[in-house]
Amino acid sequence: MSSASGPGREPLRYLSKAEAEAIEKELLEDYRFGRQQLIEIRGHACAVAVSKAFPLPSLPRKQPTVLVVCGAAQIGAVGLVCARHLRTFGYEPTIFYPKRSLEPLYRDFTTQCEKMDIPFLSYLPTEVQLINAAYNAVVDAVLGADAEPAEPYAAILATLAHVRIPIVSLDVPSGWDAEAGGSGGISPDVLVSLTAPKRCARRFRGRQHFVAGRFVPYDVQKKFELNAPEYPGTECVVALGGPRRQ
Amino acid sequence: MSSASGPGREPLRYLSKAEAEAIEKELLEDYRFGRQQLIEIRGHACAVAVSKAFPLPSLPRKQPTVLVVCGAAQIGAVGLVCARHLRTFGYEPTIFYPKRSLEPLYRDFTTQCEKMDIPFLSYLPTEVQLINAAYNAVVDAVLGADAEPAEPYAAILATLAHVRIPIVSLDVPSGWDAEAGGSGGISPDVLVSLTAPKRCARRFRGRQHFVAGRFVPYDVQKKFELNAPEYPGTECVVALGGPRRQ
Repeated sequence: MSSASGPGREPLRYLSKAEAEAIEKELLEDYRFGRQQLIEIRGHACAVAVSKAFPLPSLPRKQPTVLVVCGAAQIGAVGLVCARHLRTFGYEPTIFYPKRSLEPLYRDFTTQCEKMDIPFLSYLPTEVQLINAAYNAVVDAVLGADAEPAEPYAAILATLAHVRIPIVSLDVPSGWDAEAGGSGGISPDVLVSLTAPKRCARRFRGRQHFVAGRFVPYDVQKKFELNAPEYPGTECVVALGGPRRQ
Repeated sequence: MSSASGPGREPLRYLSKAEAEAIEKELLEDYRFGRQQLIEIRGHACAVAVSKAFPLPSLPRKQPTVLVVCGAAQIGAVGLVCARHLRTFGYEPTIFYPKRSLEPLYRDFTTQCEKMDIPFLSYLPTEVQLINAAYNAVVDAVLGADAEPAEPYAAILATLAHVRIPIVSLDVPSGWDAEAGGSGGISPDVLVSLTAPKRCARRFRGRQHFVAGRFVPYDVQKKFELNAPEYPGTECVVALGGPRRQ
């Protein structure tokens, strides 16, 4: 076990959009990581982060319910995988996935959840009190680093902005710019940065910030000067500790 | 935390070949798990099991070396993924992969290891003392449940039968029949059963037996009466404890 922000470590790197895209390209094209593989690795890590942030015995509600809201793009597929692993960890995830991607890769991740009897909501209650009462937390896998929220996502984010239960955002809080961050909109309690934090994470003011990038090859970490935190044991995520770095 | 063999649990199921194939078919065809996804999940779990059986601080050699021997079929690809994760866990894996599959899926897993600068041996020393001296353990990802060892595998297994360092076999010890087990040949110290133990695992007399099947959907576990052990926390593997069940 070692501190993620111990003395002598270079400060953690916060990626620009261009850097994040360059790393992803290198992983896919040079290292030949598969998209299915990366989504599986990341979704699993997100589920582990959720379970660290909200351990089963700590949940305020009798049922270990979690609402996972998934967009149509890749971050939504990460959310689906997260929901599947949460189920195997003993949680009771419910998925809201308003625009299903027709891409076979994403369809398969959806089928896995459906066949595992994870319930899918057909609409999101606009009455936030219903969400507050039903779930212990919300996983925000709506937009990630993708830009402007078109419908139906704008309305969904407007609802999520008013829920009182904690929100876990995957990679980039939905509606935030990956570099500039966001004002108004949702304020997640927990952020799970995938690969490495994006610049917007500097504006994160929530309770816990996890990084899920242990799988990133050392040479890629070095080339992009990620200065990744040290992951204890075989953990796939690490919580950043100490004072927030600017 | 709970015992994998606590009171009141039905005994763990040891699968026939036909049952193991039926489960795999159901995962791939009904649940739409991807092959890349399953290999990634399993290889990761095997690396976690290796790190539990041989924690970094416990290794007898100064360098945390592990030799991973991979066959051409799917279990070999699981070995490649295991090696990759061992690298990120701080081990120094070396791969021996004498017959490389031309299948793009397996080629990609190979490229990931090559690009991560994991060394590949061009031949396996027939002088076992060289293997004993160089590595802390050997991961056997040679044949898995596949039948008869043709060349070059027969010679490799003959060498591995004489090494004195511990062997970790993935799924089925190479050269063993998945149901009947094996006499002579290799005697692994550690067995990592994938999905669920095969019948041959009843004849395993080594030190530790791990099961890596947490990802298996509950309905599949129930249908095939796997009576899976309980996985603590978010662990992807569990060590079977207590007296060996027959």
